[in-house]
Amino acid sequence: MTSLPKGSSNCITDVSGIKVGHVTLYEKIDQQDTICTGVTAILPHGGNLFTKKVRAASSVINGYGKTVGLVQVDELGLLESPIMLTNTFSVGTVLQGTLQYMLNENEEIGDSASSINIVVGECNDSCLNSMRLQAVKPEHAIEAIRNATSKPVIEGAVGAGKGMVCFGYKGGIGTSSRLVAVDDVQYTVGCLVLSNFGKREDALFTSWDTEKLTMPDGSIMMIIATDAPLYDRQLKRLAKRCTAGLGRTGSHIANGSGDIAIAFSTANPYSHESNEHVASMTFVRDDHPAMNKLFQAVVEVTEEAVIRSLKKAETTKGRKGRVVEKAPFV
Amino acid sequence: MTSLPKGSSNCITDVSGIKVGHVTLYEKIDQQDTICTGVTAILPHGGNLFTKKVRAASSVINGYGKTVGLVQVDELGLLESPIMLTNTFSVGTVLQGTLQYMLNENEEIGDSASSINIVVGECNDSCLNSMRLQAVKPEHAIEAIRNATSKPVIEGAVGAGKGMVCFGYKGGIGTSSRLVAVDDVQYTVGCLVLSNFGKREDALFTSWDTEKLTMPDGSIMMIIATDAPLYDRQLKRLAKRCTAGLGRTGSHIANGSGDIAIAFSTANPYSHESNEHVASMTFVRDDHPAMNKLFQAVVEVTEEAVIRSLKKAETTKGRKGRVVEKAPFV
Amino acid sequence: MTSLPKGSSNCITDVSGIKVGHVTLYEKIDQQDTICTGVTAILPHGGNLFTKKVRAASSVINGYGKTVGLVQVDELGLLESPIMLTNTFSVGTVLQGTLQYMLNENEEIGDSASSINIVVGECNDSCLNSMRLQAVKPEHAIEAIRNATSKPVIEGAVGAGKGMVCFGYKGGIGTSSRLVAVDDVQYTVGCLVLSNFGKREDALFTSWDTEKLTMPDGSIMMIIATDAPLYDRQLKRLAKRCTAGLGRTGSHIANGSGDIAIAFSTANPYSHESNEHVASMTFVRDDHPAMNKLFQAVVEVTEEAVIRSLKKAETTKGRKGRVVEKAPFV
Amino acid sequence: MTSLPKGSSNCITDVSGIKVGHVTLYEKIDQQDTICTGVTAILPHGGNLFTKKVRAASSVINGYGKTVGLVQVDELGLLESPIMLTNTFSVGTVLQGTLQYMLNENEEIGDSASSINIVVGECNDSCLNSMRLQAVKPEHAIEAIRNATSKPVIEGAVGAGKGMVCFGYKGGIGTSSRLVAVDDVQYTVGCLVLSNFGKREDALFTSWDTEKLTMPDGSIMMIIATDAPLYDRQLKRLAKRCTAGLGRTGSHIANGSGDIAIAFSTANPYSHESNEHVASMTFVRDDHPAMNKLFQAVVEVTEEAVIRSLKKAETTKGRKGRVVEKAPFV
Repeated sequence: MTSLPKGSSNCITDVSGIKVGHVTLYEKIDQQDTICTGVTAILPHGGNLFTKKVRAASSVINGYGKTVGLVQVDELGLLESPIMLTNTFSVGTVLQGTLQYMLNENEEIGDSASSINIVVGECNDSCLNSMRLQAVKPEHAIEAIRNATSKPVIEGAVGAGKGMVCFGYKGGIGTSSRLVAVDDVQYTVGCLVLSNFGKREDALFTSWDTEKLTMPDGSIMMIIATDAPLYDRQLKRLAKRCTAGLGRTGSHIANGSGDIAIAFSTANPYSHESNEHVASMTFVRDDHPAMNKLFQAVVEVTEEAVIRSLKKAETTKGRKGRVVEKAPFV
Repeated sequence: MTSLPKGSSNCITDVSGIKVGHVTLYEKIDQQDTICTGVTAILPHGGNLFTKKVRAASSVINGYGKTVGLVQVDELGLLESPIMLTNTFSVGTVLQGTLQYMLNENEEIGDSASSINIVVGECNDSCLNSMRLQAVKPEHAIEAIRNATSKPVIEGAVGAGKGMVCFGYKGGIGTSSRLVAVDDVQYTVGCLVLSNFGKREDALFTSWDTEKLTMPDGSIMMIIATDAPLYDRQLKRLAKRCTAGLGRTGSHIANGSGDIAIAFSTANPYSHESNEHVASMTFVRDDHPAMNKLFQAVVEVTEEAVIRSLKKAETTKGRKGRVVEKAPFV
Repeated sequence: MTSLPKGSSNCITDVSGIKVGHVTLYEKIDQQDTICTGVTAILPHGGNLFTKKVRAASSVINGYGKTVGLVQVDELGLLESPIMLTNTFSVGTVLQGTLQYMLNENEEIGDSASSINIVVGECNDSCLNSMRLQAVKPEHAIEAIRNATSKPVIEGAVGAGKGMVCFGYKGGIGTSSRLVAVDDVQYTVGCLVLSNFGKREDALFTSWDTEKLTMPDGSIMMIIATDAPLYDRQLKRLAKRCTAGLGRTGSHIANGSGDIAIAFSTANPYSHESNEHVASMTFVRDDHPAMNKLFQAVVEVTEEAVIRSLKKAETTKGRKGRVVEKAPFV
Repeated sequence: MTSLPKGSSNCITDVSGIKVGHVTLYEKIDQQDTICTGVTAILPHGGNLFTKKVRAASSVINGYGKTVGLVQVDELGLLESPIMLTNTFSVGTVLQGTLQYMLNENEEIGDSASSINIVVGECNDSCLNSMRLQAVKPEHAIEAIRNATSKPVIEGAVGAGKGMVCFGYKGGIGTSSRLVAVDDVQYTVGCLVLSNFGKREDALFTSWDTEKLTMPDGSIMMIIATDAPLYDRQLKRLAKRCTAGLGRTGSHIANGSGDIAIAFSTANPYSHESNEHVASMTFVRDDHPAMNKLFQAVVEVTEEAVIRSLKKAETTKGRKGRVVEKAPFV
């Protein structure tokens, strides 16, 4: 198969305007407990996300997950907060922190204006992280947002990926991008994953021995960003294609896995307020070959982002003396 | 139309085992700010909800809402936590408090066992409540759970309903129940709503003048409980029928309204662990007339619970000196 | 409640461009069998629907139904055929006839161009019609399309409504419309229903005795048309509001009822072919008060179209000597 | 990755009771037109499918398709007809023929009993078949059902697969099966696909040159059968996993592709009538490792069935003198 060309940094931040920030928490408490977790923030743009929303949609591939905020994203087709990633037991505090950040930025929310919808995704890092200690505080969410830059994303055992395990080796944050040329325009499709699933023997992209320890089912969060002009129905089509990329890595989408994709486009911003009762938008025609290229891009970036989350992650020690090793690629 | 007979207390707790608890927060801070909010907990049974789960499903009638936990309920058809209700900006803290309660009860969660899925619903009480102050703390969620009893539910301006407004008058918590007899068995269907929607002139069940103030769109959470043996697909059918009951009150299901229904059955508990690889369950046949009676019951209890949330609520003063009056029924 | 103003004919054809056509089949065969059925065609516009598609969406309120074509409508947000209504066992022949009509109009379909998606809805008229005889032929579908006019719709026991029964009285085709004024623009929302559900004692809009005969659960098809510029996600929101209007008539949405709503807008036509890889469209802002008015319009037209389907239908004799009477309105 | 063991014939009919039948139509009419199409019937069991229904669910991976019958399957979780496959323009006639078959078998349908829901899937075979001629008649559907046997399925350019094209080579019908052992029980998962999608350069399971001709997007129907006791929610989970298997073959799930999966279990038959108002069923626990094995089986059989549809198909001549070659496996 002919792959599409990669973006300049092969990174979700190749999509113009996207910013990503991490906060990593790592501290050995005692023989039993280690804090080995974090928060990752993905910002569709650097401005005020409440007043300038972006079109978005989600696809719940397997719903054994605790992601917050999808009900409203699916109803309105809009994203009005950063997408936050963290561990399963920190969804509440990260929600709170992100809410506080948005309230600070927008005095009218919850006063004269409506409420705001915050999106927080998660994976279960309890293999390495003492998740019951709930080390992530609201201020860590705010810090991750403030750390966000448009530079190439730091990958592997970092941010929300600090304690994640993928295919029995150290996983976490991975990213990738592809370019789609159509007429005189070039669009970019980027993906950032938080990988935390699979057994060694399942991996299709390499050849690994069977792992000795039985791991619980994990999860994966997949964030797709693009500057191609697409609207919510079309972004849902993109989000659904993540499943094909995920399948290529070797996943069977296990029962206990929260496999959730969120896709957004930076090309059709929607202002919170307007004097007009109508708005308009431009979108790629579903029947144009460009749409199939965008679909192909989603499959490719999802697969590659998972593999990179392994390649970039370092051996990590966690709670109960557990060590999850860096994956040996052959 | 012949209505179905009501349960002994016309209350969701007529469904055997159900418990409901409130925490109400009310304090005038200054001329601008008043804390006028709370938390309500609905427990499917008095035991350990993680080890003994119940079948459940949801229906998002309009998704302008921030309810947490539906992704997993829909995937697995199970509820493993209390259903918590609060204001929009307290979802994070109530999630955190409820998680802490469940962690305290179950040492294995997030350690040797899997994670846990918490369900929190909300409405926006910022008309009366200084919601930006985020007065609800995690311990209020725990307290609401501990307050839960199987006695008749206190309704109106209480718990999560303290600051809610419905059809331009004081709304909040309302409840109702119906009995469905089939063969020699009698089933109960109960509903508890958190009402926070509508304009005066929309109400169909009475005749009210047009209200002077323009209110933002509100929301309604509708919790359906039954002891009829139903499984998740069937419970989703029940949840969807709430829309018909809601329509009868006069709602047009406004754009800014988070209208969300969650239905559960106490009749098919599911143990967290088992030595067997199979389980079994009994369920009412979809094609039996009993199912239509259950559907009718859902429509009736939803409509009546909304009306009762108005009838039971007292005139309430809130932030900025605002007063929302008790509804005058004629 | 203040109702919205009605369109000039209180009819779905008040939406500019909409055409409706009927074919009615009625013939007593013998003591047992009577043909008492038909076909109704709703055309979003009078041009070529394949080359000039319209934005559309559906909502399956209860899926005990055999409607054809929704899979593709939901994926692409487009309608590219007339919406055809008929009895349950004639979906195949009406699909075939409508396909033939579209093939005749478009030589390239299935040759150089793609395939085409036909939409056919149905209700079960076997109370009065000898449905097993499958009297509807493909040519009846073509005839219904050719009969379509933009004049006020003939209602009651006509077309697909010939054999339908609603609330224990003669039902069938009903229609209604409302006007929504915003800024200097006026939008029209129309509804056409094929009504075939309910027991006498369920009706909320009048007071009828309990019917003696137990009828099986029926169904209702609800078609919403508007000239307001809306796209597919928004049209799904409109389609979902039909449930509230349906609930107001007294329906509990019975188990055996195929309650299906389809909504389309004539304001954003989409050409089958284009030299451009992008298209654009204008849409009403979800957060503008106009959207709530459109929602209110849907609730009102659905409720009224059901009532009109009863008011306009005449007493009808069908198979096995059965007579279904005209509803006595008090 | 360790694959699961295959069933004795590596065929969907390894699932006890399943029967498959084909009718193939092939005739050169003139220089322009060739009939090159057919019908394939999959019967969950050899008995009366209306009186003894099976649990089922579907997953629409991409909805550019005309499959009939999914609305009711999804509402009730039941399949009550054979699953029929054919070309896009023959859905109407196959629906009609299958309806006639079921009416003949059940005198009460549409008379004293309810209606019946027929399931027909399709792919567009207009590359080779003169689809506009609509050569498939209702009696071909009946014949395909009568031809059904529990013997190993004939694969390739046969039945509905006669005119299909996959990855630029001759595709059509393919099948595969896997065994899942748990405790002392052995379950079988089978798949039958109708393959009609992809470009040569997309194939991941071999290395093919770029094809010269640009083909339109195609489609794939995927039927999953199992004797594992599962209910509708769980069968939907299985159906969704087909996407991962499809992704492994190289599909990007193109815009114009109707990629639809239907899964059913033979283990929980549901009688059309009963004296009881309740029924009961046994099901594999979602959290038991057996469920993950079933998921893995779905991914494997889907991927392999696609590959076999190519391996078993012979070079075929069609309309306009077109020849689609047998795939050269290396």
